[in-house]
Amino acid sequence: MSLLVVGSVAFDTVKTPYGEAEEVLGGSATYFAVAASFFTPVRMVAVVGRDFGEGPLRLLRERGIDVSGLEVADGRTFRWSGVYSDDLNDRTTLATHLNVFESFKPKIRKEDVGSRFLFLGNIDPDLQREVLRRIKPGFAACDTMNFWIEGKSDSLKQLLAKVDGLVINDSEARLLAGELNTTAAARRLLGLGLRFVVIKRGEYGAALFSGAHYFAVPAFPVERPVDPTGAGDSFAGGFMGYLAREGRTSGPALRQAMVYGTVLASFCVEDFSLKRMASVTPKAIEARARALRDALDVDGPARRG
Amino acid sequence: MSLLVVGSVAFDTVKTPYGEAEEVLGGSATYFAVAASFFTPVRMVAVVGRDFGEGPLRLLRERGIDVSGLEVADGRTFRWSGVYSDDLNDRTTLATHLNVFESFKPKIRKEDVGSRFLFLGNIDPDLQREVLRRIKPGFAACDTMNFWIEGKSDSLKQLLAKVDGLVINDSEARLLAGELNTTAAARRLLGLGLRFVVIKRGEYGAALFSGAHYFAVPAFPVERPVDPTGAGDSFAGGFMGYLAREGRTSGPALRQAMVYGTVLASFCVEDFSLKRMASVTPKAIEARARALRDALDVDGPARRG
Repeated sequence: MSLLVVGSVAFDTVKTPYGEAEEVLGGSATYFAVAASFFTPVRMVAVVGRDFGEGPLRLLRERGIDVSGLEVADGRTFRWSGVYSDDLNDRTTLATHLNVFESFKPKIRKEDVGSRFLFLGNIDPDLQREVLRRIKPGFAACDTMNFWIEGKSDSLKQLLAKVDGLVINDSEARLLAGELNTTAAARRLLGLGLRFVVIKRGEYGAALFSGAHYFAVPAFPVERPVDPTGAGDSFAGGFMGYLAREGRTSGPALRQAMVYGTVLASFCVEDFSLKRMASVTPKAIEARARALRDALDVDGPARRG
Repeated sequence: MSLLVVGSVAFDTVKTPYGEAEEVLGGSATYFAVAASFFTPVRMVAVVGRDFGEGPLRLLRERGIDVSGLEVADGRTFRWSGVYSDDLNDRTTLATHLNVFESFKPKIRKEDVGSRFLFLGNIDPDLQREVLRRIKPGFAACDTMNFWIEGKSDSLKQLLAKVDGLVINDSEARLLAGELNTTAAARRLLGLGLRFVVIKRGEYGAALFSGAHYFAVPAFPVERPVDPTGAGDSFAGGFMGYLAREGRTSGPALRQAMVYGTVLASFCVEDFSLKRMASVTPKAIEARARALRDALDVDGPARRG
């Protein structure tokens, strides 16, 4: 089923203990859309500058992503640069130039209205609410960040009462809920009207809280994570892409979606930008999903294949 | 089957965001033995001072723990005090007074020799090797810490070639292996001759690396962790206690043992010292083990009772 994502597109300059990359394609909507494209048709609503160029567009189109909602505005594309700590668990932002993203107002066209699945990437919650109101999806999830939690908490809470799920980093979940403990935070967030909360824990994997149920997936054990940029967005893309493909959002479907989100994030971190993830095969995705299910199998190790 | 643990017994003074406790019973062997006592008979080999008193002894004996190997030496019992960060993930040691523990030489008696299961808590690896040599267990695992990794790396590596498994914190695993990445560290440690490595990740749970297999258990979602002191030792105690009770150490047995280790750690953190853990019931342990298996069930949530 159709999946629409609203978020950022950026050029990133990144330094990690494993190397560096300059002005490479990034942004939450980009990572999300590429990850989701392995499962279902994806439309991106985002803004880029006049400098965006054909190369990045080609990459997105080759993944079958509908980029007709990609607005080209006067000015430069969003730039971010940062450097990661030795264990990749912390990062320091060196520069953020929002450029055309600063005045981004998602343009929802007639053909976008009624998209069955919607992911509201990390933008102003006022805009997220407006997009939700316009699209009227069957199923919606969102992300957010410290900046909006601190600056627009009321608007954000109104949004959370209207979407199905929240996919969020653990530190941001605690900040948003005003709790020191992640479990307590997740349960408090469910109380705002959400059906489920997914807590992203970086190299420690992700946890799903849904009603009284709890499910956790470890990160896929990658030995050489090169760059964690975009891993959380790739997780969300794999997660939502799987749900949209299946057209189901029941408890068991959410759990399988957690596995696929984790798999896409594991490919994301194996190289800079989308270098690794954009070129994986469905077969490689299935192989990691199987390995991850084995890693969760308390009666295992299974004697498969 | 019989399980013997060698390690420390201490009085701890602890401050966390949830309160503080002064001069309460602690130490690696203590937490380990109490956790393991829910599964199998446990013998403790450790040292205390003349100030140890009847209260702590009674607690251990009430759990059926054989404390005849608890040496009472001239001097004071080991004291540790520390304070935890708001999210409980970091702690600062305020004082360490080794006291009688400083010159601890485990006394292995005739009746200890041949204990089928042995856990070598975090003491000098020279002593760990000596205990292993004397006891000749069927199955042995050990823990260690930064101090020995930095000071006695060669002795430690000789030990690792002789035990079955290592149960260790993630940062210490990386330090010991000389790797930035936990997965790479675990695989390198397996290369030292270990059959399995368990990586403890605090609030993120624990991971088992065994040959080419990987298994991960999230922490049990406790909403109000009061004090994480001893959680790792309680994990090890639940883990080894389960294996000793079952008398099996196959792959599936190790996975079930990870679940029980996680459950005991979850009770440990719910109050200071052994207040909560020492008084849980087998029924409560089984209920959490079931909930945790549900949290790992990718086809769930199961519709059990």
